[in-house]
Amino acid sequence: MSDPAKPVRIAILGPGTVGSEVVRLLSEQGPDLAARVGAPLELAGVYVRDTSKDRGPHLPATVLTSDASALVAGADVVVELMGGIEPARTLILEAIAGGASVVTANKALLAAHGPELYEAADAANVDLYFEAAVAGAIPLVRPVRESLAGDHITRILGIVNGTTNYILDEMTRRGLSYDVALKQAQELGYAEADPTADVEGHDAAAKAAILASLAFHQRVALEDVYCEGISAITAEDVIAARETDQVIKLLAIAERTPEGVAVRVHPALVPSDHPLAGVHGAFNAVFIEAESAGGLMFYGQGAGGTPTASAVLGDLVSVARHRANGGKGPRESHYAVHDVLPIEAALTRYCVRMAVEDRPGVLSAVAEVFAQHGVGIEIVRQVPGQTHAGLILSTYAAPERDLRATVEGLRRSDAVAAVKSVLRIEGE
Amino acid sequence: MSDPAKPVRIAILGPGTVGSEVVRLLSEQGPDLAARVGAPLELAGVYVRDTSKDRGPHLPATVLTSDASALVAGADVVVELMGGIEPARTLILEAIAGGASVVTANKALLAAHGPELYEAADAANVDLYFEAAVAGAIPLVRPVRESLAGDHITRILGIVNGTTNYILDEMTRRGLSYDVALKQAQELGYAEADPTADVEGHDAAAKAAILASLAFHQRVALEDVYCEGISAITAEDVIAARETDQVIKLLAIAERTPEGVAVRVHPALVPSDHPLAGVHGAFNAVFIEAESAGGLMFYGQGAGGTPTASAVLGDLVSVARHRANGGKGPRESHYAVHDVLPIEAALTRYCVRMAVEDRPGVLSAVAEVFAQHGVGIEIVRQVPGQTHAGLILSTYAAPERDLRATVEGLRRSDAVAAVKSVLRIEGE
Repeated sequence: MSDPAKPVRIAILGPGTVGSEVVRLLSEQGPDLAARVGAPLELAGVYVRDTSKDRGPHLPATVLTSDASALVAGADVVVELMGGIEPARTLILEAIAGGASVVTANKALLAAHGPELYEAADAANVDLYFEAAVAGAIPLVRPVRESLAGDHITRILGIVNGTTNYILDEMTRRGLSYDVALKQAQELGYAEADPTADVEGHDAAAKAAILASLAFHQRVALEDVYCEGISAITAEDVIAARETDQVIKLLAIAERTPEGVAVRVHPALVPSDHPLAGVHGAFNAVFIEAESAGGLMFYGQGAGGTPTASAVLGDLVSVARHRANGGKGPRESHYAVHDVLPIEAALTRYCVRMAVEDRPGVLSAVAEVFAQHGVGIEIVRQVPGQTHAGLILSTYAAPERDLRATVEGLRRSDAVAAVKSVLRIEGE
Repeated sequence: MSDPAKPVRIAILGPGTVGSEVVRLLSEQGPDLAARVGAPLELAGVYVRDTSKDRGPHLPATVLTSDASALVAGADVVVELMGGIEPARTLILEAIAGGASVVTANKALLAAHGPELYEAADAANVDLYFEAAVAGAIPLVRPVRESLAGDHITRILGIVNGTTNYILDEMTRRGLSYDVALKQAQELGYAEADPTADVEGHDAAAKAAILASLAFHQRVALEDVYCEGISAITAEDVIAARETDQVIKLLAIAERTPEGVAVRVHPALVPSDHPLAGVHGAFNAVFIEAESAGGLMFYGQGAGGTPTASAVLGDLVSVARHRANGGKGPRESHYAVHDVLPIEAALTRYCVRMAVEDRPGVLSAVAEVFAQHGVGIEIVRQVPGQTHAGLILSTYAAPERDLRATVEGLRRSDAVAAVKSVLRIEGE
């Protein structure tokens, strides 16, 4: 055990909103943090590319440096908030090699290079913490890898992207079209000028890979995550969902079945009385099913400088406690060897909305297509139309490959004028 | 670091539903737990008072012992699931003195003797974990004392007693009277034959004391917790709540204000769109407000053998990891010295429902009573009645002592026939 009065030196990489909030809180809450850690936390410096630029009152020029390697070499804990792959990856590896522990919020880096970083941290016997990488302020990494370490997680259903939840929630609650809701999200700063990473599900996919790795104790790579975004969701889909007491949410899903592990991101119909259906605006929530614990839900702000800084500081306190008092957090747990299943093998339910010819025998022809592929129909709803009748079918759970073949069959059927939308049903 | 292959020996005190579930899971999930800990977990034995009684298939006679001290002396980790103060307290102190780490689910013991146990564990440099003592399966202790260690928690609003939430939810959703809902809870096993500890709020008060201590980094004793139960709640109260888009919940509340810390348990009106309003049946949920993180909610099963065993095993894995790999969890954090405020100083809002004389000037007489005590009225609703008119008033936030004096004044007023109910309003 080192001298408890010796300060723990913190290097911060990245001067963005999260970084400057972390610096502010380190300074304003110094005595509290020192009492909780058992040693003072001392800011060693903040790495920025351009030290001449004004960074606001919390980042005075005196704390800035453009020499990242020197900063990292002199630190006990390195907090990486730069985002992106490089130079974040190289600097984290430098920090670990130099014996520093690391706190990062970089989901893209962990999803792409997690194993390399975890192994380096393990070899150097330092901590690598990353609570802020998944669902911002919501404690999730620690509950999943520590609180539930004596349980078997069977399923995770998460709303882990605030931008898409905001867009879908506005479409649901105010009847907006996708384009109008996206534009509004951009004006309010919830969506970026190029919204691709959010609306196409890439951001959620990186978080799904991290959560699945933690939950199932094995490595799940970003390439293992099937990913569909929300840009094809229409106001008509939202109305059809409401009529059947459902809402549309972009879900990150990780499931463990007897056949293996399946991880996917896509929009889905969720029953209105499911806890996730009540998650509004840009909030995040993750619903976890575990064999012994049953259903658990974690809810809160998934983004934003101050909420994310809360998660970073929580990690910083844990890691600094280990520096001051000895010990180390859990290492990567990747002993399990379940097959990672392709999306075609996932068991899902579909809701298929189509325009059909308005004549006798059509329902029978449509039902025949489902029967050919062994997909059971649970509910059929006919909706009167103008040139064509509307038909909405919900299936029982079936392998995705059979459902896809069914939809292909429907598109080819003479009875079907158009397959208007296909949405999976989750959370029942 | 000790030899990773050396088993960690687990002693279990208490053969109840949680204890037998822990034994079952230890046996069925042996290889998984060993992989997560880095060493096998070995059952040293289960303490029972009467070893001749049949304890079911998971507790064969071979694992039972009636010699608690010998069992504790030979264990690396002692899991205390007996409940009550003695002999649990003495056995935990024996375990700590002998160098064992301790996992307990005993909220009553922690609320009454926490500081003594925490200090003993600290002095012996062993772990004392207690996730299962608050809200069963829901990860709450670890998130509050670790994930939020870099934040300032300002308020906790928790539904932490499943029995009372079940009773209130049945009253709300099915219009039952308190007595019928209680009887139903007893028949279903949600309430005990003597329901006092649950319905009078004592169980929730113990959990509130533990949560407040963790959240505010100072000791909060059970005696510091103001406590009111739900046995006076009527079907009429529930209907009046619904008419104003509110529901009645028994809340454990811990608040930090500039004046100090206030901790209380009482039924309260909660807006229907608050996340806590959607917590049904015997489920638990805890809403936490922190300066940086904002609002967070944790939801799940708060009781039951298997869910509670999940929380116990999570702690067991953490504590055993420290045994196998070195390190130690966070010690008790009690550096803060906020005043613990009496209930009279708490700032709350009241909803007062009364029967008043049906004549002109009554509202003005009633309003005068509020004004005399400096309590602002936000909303007045008149309800036609038979012999008397009904009047429902909601106040602005005011010190509890002023609200109480106002209610006393109302009871003495000629204009008021009866004060029918007084409920606090929370969660806005």
